[in-house]
Amino acid sequence: MIDHSTVQQSAGAALVPFYRPTGNECALFETAYREGLPLLIKGPTGCGKTRFVMHMAARLGRPLHTVSCHDDLTAADLTGRYLLQGGETKWMDGPLTRAVREGGICYLDEIVEARKDVTVVLHPLTDDRRILPLERSGELLEAPQQFMLVVSYNPGYQNILKSLKPSTRQRFVSISFDFPSPAIEAEIIAAESGLPEPQCILLATLAQRLRTLKDVDLEEVVSTRLLIYCATLLKNGLDPQQAAEAALVEPLCDDPEVKQGLLELINATFGQP
Amino acid sequence: MIDHSTVQQSAGAALVPFYRPTGNECALFETAYREGLPLLIKGPTGCGKTRFVMHMAARLGRPLHTVSCHDDLTAADLTGRYLLQGGETKWMDGPLTRAVREGGICYLDEIVEARKDVTVVLHPLTDDRRILPLERSGELLEAPQQFMLVVSYNPGYQNILKSLKPSTRQRFVSISFDFPSPAIEAEIIAAESGLPEPQCILLATLAQRLRTLKDVDLEEVVSTRLLIYCATLLKNGLDPQQAAEAALVEPLCDDPEVKQGLLELINATFGQP
Amino acid sequence: MIDHSTVQQSAGAALVPFYRPTGNECALFETAYREGLPLLIKGPTGCGKTRFVMHMAARLGRPLHTVSCHDDLTAADLTGRYLLQGGETKWMDGPLTRAVREGGICYLDEIVEARKDVTVVLHPLTDDRRILPLERSGELLEAPQQFMLVVSYNPGYQNILKSLKPSTRQRFVSISFDFPSPAIEAEIIAAESGLPEPQCILLATLAQRLRTLKDVDLEEVVSTRLLIYCATLLKNGLDPQQAAEAALVEPLCDDPEVKQGLLELINATFGQP
Amino acid sequence: MIDHSTVQQSAGAALVPFYRPTGNECALFETAYREGLPLLIKGPTGCGKTRFVMHMAARLGRPLHTVSCHDDLTAADLTGRYLLQGGETKWMDGPLTRAVREGGICYLDEIVEARKDVTVVLHPLTDDRRILPLERSGELLEAPQQFMLVVSYNPGYQNILKSLKPSTRQRFVSISFDFPSPAIEAEIIAAESGLPEPQCILLATLAQRLRTLKDVDLEEVVSTRLLIYCATLLKNGLDPQQAAEAALVEPLCDDPEVKQGLLELINATFGQP
Amino acid sequence: MIDHSTVQQSAGAALVPFYRPTGNECALFETAYREGLPLLIKGPTGCGKTRFVMHMAARLGRPLHTVSCHDDLTAADLTGRYLLQGGETKWMDGPLTRAVREGGICYLDEIVEARKDVTVVLHPLTDDRRILPLERSGELLEAPQQFMLVVSYNPGYQNILKSLKPSTRQRFVSISFDFPSPAIEAEIIAAESGLPEPQCILLATLAQRLRTLKDVDLEEVVSTRLLIYCATLLKNGLDPQQAAEAALVEPLCDDPEVKQGLLELINATFGQP
Amino acid sequence: MIDHSTVQQSAGAALVPFYRPTGNECALFETAYREGLPLLIKGPTGCGKTRFVMHMAARLGRPLHTVSCHDDLTAADLTGRYLLQGGETKWMDGPLTRAVREGGICYLDEIVEARKDVTVVLHPLTDDRRILPLERSGELLEAPQQFMLVVSYNPGYQNILKSLKPSTRQRFVSISFDFPSPAIEAEIIAAESGLPEPQCILLATLAQRLRTLKDVDLEEVVSTRLLIYCATLLKNGLDPQQAAEAALVEPLCDDPEVKQGLLELINATFGQP
Repeated sequence: MIDHSTVQQSAGAALVPFYRPTGNECALFETAYREGLPLLIKGPTGCGKTRFVMHMAARLGRPLHTVSCHDDLTAADLTGRYLLQGGETKWMDGPLTRAVREGGICYLDEIVEARKDVTVVLHPLTDDRRILPLERSGELLEAPQQFMLVVSYNPGYQNILKSLKPSTRQRFVSISFDFPSPAIEAEIIAAESGLPEPQCILLATLAQRLRTLKDVDLEEVVSTRLLIYCATLLKNGLDPQQAAEAALVEPLCDDPEVKQGLLELINATFGQP
Repeated sequence: MIDHSTVQQSAGAALVPFYRPTGNECALFETAYREGLPLLIKGPTGCGKTRFVMHMAARLGRPLHTVSCHDDLTAADLTGRYLLQGGETKWMDGPLTRAVREGGICYLDEIVEARKDVTVVLHPLTDDRRILPLERSGELLEAPQQFMLVVSYNPGYQNILKSLKPSTRQRFVSISFDFPSPAIEAEIIAAESGLPEPQCILLATLAQRLRTLKDVDLEEVVSTRLLIYCATLLKNGLDPQQAAEAALVEPLCDDPEVKQGLLELINATFGQP
Repeated sequence: MIDHSTVQQSAGAALVPFYRPTGNECALFETAYREGLPLLIKGPTGCGKTRFVMHMAARLGRPLHTVSCHDDLTAADLTGRYLLQGGETKWMDGPLTRAVREGGICYLDEIVEARKDVTVVLHPLTDDRRILPLERSGELLEAPQQFMLVVSYNPGYQNILKSLKPSTRQRFVSISFDFPSPAIEAEIIAAESGLPEPQCILLATLAQRLRTLKDVDLEEVVSTRLLIYCATLLKNGLDPQQAAEAALVEPLCDDPEVKQGLLELINATFGQP
Repeated sequence: MIDHSTVQQSAGAALVPFYRPTGNECALFETAYREGLPLLIKGPTGCGKTRFVMHMAARLGRPLHTVSCHDDLTAADLTGRYLLQGGETKWMDGPLTRAVREGGICYLDEIVEARKDVTVVLHPLTDDRRILPLERSGELLEAPQQFMLVVSYNPGYQNILKSLKPSTRQRFVSISFDFPSPAIEAEIIAAESGLPEPQCILLATLAQRLRTLKDVDLEEVVSTRLLIYCATLLKNGLDPQQAAEAALVEPLCDDPEVKQGLLELINATFGQP
Repeated sequence: MIDHSTVQQSAGAALVPFYRPTGNECALFETAYREGLPLLIKGPTGCGKTRFVMHMAARLGRPLHTVSCHDDLTAADLTGRYLLQGGETKWMDGPLTRAVREGGICYLDEIVEARKDVTVVLHPLTDDRRILPLERSGELLEAPQQFMLVVSYNPGYQNILKSLKPSTRQRFVSISFDFPSPAIEAEIIAAESGLPEPQCILLATLAQRLRTLKDVDLEEVVSTRLLIYCATLLKNGLDPQQAAEAALVEPLCDDPEVKQGLLELINATFGQP
Repeated sequence: MIDHSTVQQSAGAALVPFYRPTGNECALFETAYREGLPLLIKGPTGCGKTRFVMHMAARLGRPLHTVSCHDDLTAADLTGRYLLQGGETKWMDGPLTRAVREGGICYLDEIVEARKDVTVVLHPLTDDRRILPLERSGELLEAPQQFMLVVSYNPGYQNILKSLKPSTRQRFVSISFDFPSPAIEAEIIAAESGLPEPQCILLATLAQRLRTLKDVDLEEVVSTRLLIYCATLLKNGLDPQQAAEAALVEPLCDDPEVKQGLLELINATFGQP
């Protein structure tokens, strides 16, 4: 038999993961949690949305269930299904159902990628009914006070064919994330990689330049995560050009000219080898 | 074993949910109910369609089965299916079948999102036959006098690829909803959020301005639900700009310029911070 | 165990449902029935096709099996399938197979909506072989003299992507329906709704005007069914404008200007309120 | 248990169905049968392809298995599959496999409608290997001398997206059918309907005129089958205009103007009523 | 229980099927076999690719497993799957797995028609790993020295949407086939049909003319297979025009003008009747 | 029962496969491995990506699980599923899960071909959580220090409809591969094929010329793998033109003119026959 309690993510444990606030996001999260309002977080790749939710879940002492949404995610993947096990059929809760049962936080990352039936399952949970009907098992769960639904998406990379319908969007209190200021970002890079702060400041400054480059065709700008990767490589003794190429240039693009342009800017920052 | 009686929504209980009528909608609903005519409700997101149906179901003392329709909703999701349980196959009624059996009200929200086979299942229930053939289980249910079918959709956000076929539409008595007048809307906001009435009137006035904005590219206008969210945040002590940003601006759009325009109008209403 | 005999529609019972003929359709139906020829009925939404078939089935004393076709209707839905029940697999006849076995009438409404494999199942039943091969169960049914196949579709609302292939169409004797004359339609409205005849004549006259409106963009004209709905609302004491709005205007369109135009014509008929 | 022997079509019985040859088609069929060559028959709807195959199968004393192909026909529908019956899985031959086992004739009507995997199953049967590998059951059947594969399609109504690949087409000896001459067609109409010959000649003459109409937009011309339907209605006492409308006009088109044009030509033939 | 050994094709038997080489193809095949290199054969329909592989398999004394690829062919069709049989699940090898286990030759005809997951299954078998991982059964087969993979496609009839990815193509030693010279083709026709050689030379000459026709819109030219069909019909006493029409004209096209043009050329060869 | 330990690829064994480094790729791989960072390798077909990963896995003494991605690869193919075996359902780990459990390296080749749900499964493994939630089995695996995820794709042949989303790409340290210099490539050809070095140098020089050809329309340039094939054929005594045609020309293209152009260049290199 499977012990569901082992499936909870470690966010429910005592340790609160490091998070550096940049505005009123913590207060807004707590108000939404207290009032039973669902929350939508918007923001670019790798800017810290997932970490923020882990941080708040730990602070509020609630178990966290994170689901990365995708094209083939169905409602049953969230709510649960019957599985045949040892000749018997057993109902197996999905992560959303588990979060509702135990009064946890369910975080659906990149919600716009999910199929339409997924967003519709959320509707009765996101109005004043706060219920989760499980048609298959014949149960009707009422969400406890502590249950909270958090979703996110990246407005800068929204699929044209995919967007949240207004009838879904208008069910969420919303907040918009962006990358932190260079000073805060350097602080984050240092905390995560262990690289000495002067080099972290250099990286954060470089990031700001890279993000404001004109006339460069990049699908998305460099994330805080990649800066941490670069810091990690530097700390391991790779020379700056090699570290930047592997962590900042190649992950961002394939076009040789664009890569060359990025490298030149990077060399100008670190001093050409 | 599963107890079907527990799956009924709380609308069947004694308490009648708050609903503030704005026209002859209650009389029309009751006539349709008495004469066994199916009802179609049209109206924008968050204007109170679901609440109206909950209210009428409670007033008429009928259990309510609400289904949010979507792309992958099949006829079997409504009518029922055989499930394997403990080595035996058992027929499990879907919400439509349960409503027919017990003489309840079945409410299909956003019916245009459902697959075509769903609307066709409704045909024999929506003419003078009033029957529900369950091919799979070999049953033919005749709907009792008290059974009523209610469907809804949002004409302002209809998918080009999706619409009700005339052969389905012409089976329903229909009613068109819109947002209430500012006075009535303020009353609703106050009742739902507990915010003092002067601030609610301010919010309702703001909503009217936001809904009649020219030259602003919004997929849909602000709903009564979002106004209640905003009121809830205000009541929790968030300052007006933060509350409006989280509840009125971010849920409506992603475009920075449009967001800026909305914020300016909001600040003009609440007094710039 | 399931008793198949209970699945037959009430049309097989003694009562012959009301039907008001408008031409030679009854004679043609009877000849086709006698000669074993399949019949195709063409006509707009809500003009009485289904009622006509129910009427003829009752007159001829044959059980009727009606199937509303749709995108996901497969051949197995018509012919039958094996179902697991109580550990045993049992063959469950579909409505077409039941009609063939008992010499009944099988009526496939909106046949063009069905998937291609459905129309092909009909081929051996619609030539001089008159057989139904059930590959899955290994049976080959020969249709008795009394079996008749009737199909229908609406040529005014044919999906561009969907039409009957000539190789299917040319297997049916065909008949084209239209709305009845105002005098006959008033008679039908009165018989169905119980509204006094003068008001029914007014409604039938109104319908004729609405159906011949120029420059109005409606997907389909008002059906006899909607006129009966309107008569029912009037009989329940709703005022004419409200009844016409709910039963004649809102079910036909969503566009505010078109709705306004229809309302003006209606008011001109009933006398403006 | 199911007795496969009962699934054979009646063509295997003693009676040879009526067929009126129009060229060397019988000799060609017999040579192909004797030499083990597969045969492809091309021709319009309702010109007698199916009847021809039934006739030849009876003449050669071989059981006939006819399959009407369609979009969803899979290879397993032809070859067979395992079915769960009474707790045991049993292999159930499909019609192609049955024809191979018993040395019968398998006729695939409208082969271009079938899915690609179907035509590929035919490949090892249509070269000098003459084998049918049943991967699922682990059998490899060698077709006996008497097995013959016949396929057909209608070149005048070929789906743009569907056609036989050259690698499939070049595996068949082929023959092209057309409608018979008026004299022969009148003979066929009389034999099938029992209508006196003078009227049959009138119908055959009318058919020829209808088939050569210029400037008329018909998907396909009138078939011999429809002429037999018309003759049957006439024999039942319907007046010529009604019979022609039901059997020749309505089955061919929906457009009012085209229908009017056809009716005028028909009236000119039968004498206007 | 099923005896897999009976599923091998007869090519593994003692008799070597007739094949007339036209270049160094036999030497290349043997070298690839000896060195464990996979082989790709390109060439038009009916030019003898399948026969060549059968011939080589017999010469090398290896069992041959031929699979005709198509749209719906999945990896599991090649590698195998679990089947329920008599209450037990049994693993059933697919043809590729059987060929790997016994050191046989697996020939995938028209590989470009297969689904993408099929070509990917081939990757670990077509580099120096020469392994076949069976994820489902948990086995990892190492191909023995004698295993060889052969694939083919027709470059003249490649689907625009389908082609071998370079990452697959560059894994095969490749060879391009074309039709043989008239002298060799006549030899082949005589050997296969038993028609006297002078007539076979006439047919081979005709084929060459047909293949070089200008301004004729044919999807593909006449194959050696069709010439053998024509020879077979001639040997059975059909007159040349009838034989050529049934075996060379109708299998190639549907267009009346093109057919007429081909017939004229044929009559000019055989002498007009 | 199945012994999972036998499914590991031979890369886990003592022998380190031959790999000739061309830059700092080995150091970068080792740093990423030590720091728990996932790695993305970009490069053309047949340039040695797979061999490099096999080499590094062997050097680091970790078992390697390689998966060739494709259109139909689902998340369950990577993580595992329940299988029915002998009446019992057993969980069967997929290759990714096995790699996580045993601290191995999982290499997903051509990751852009996989379905979206696959890349999403990788997300919690590629940030600082380093977890693999198995919703189906109810397990939450924490990846051990030694687990490493490596993915690759070919930027020169990226499907327009397929690309890694930035939110996935920015999770990998990346490295770009190209073909080696002629001197190194000759060394590789000699090591792999056993052909004497002078001829290998000739082949490597030829390759460089072929890769820089202007005005030749090839989907992709010649790979090191094909050069090794050509060397193998030469070593078996085929003459240079035949070997080059079979190993360098036919695998690259179908167009007769392009093939002729390539052959001329090849003959100029080897000396015309």
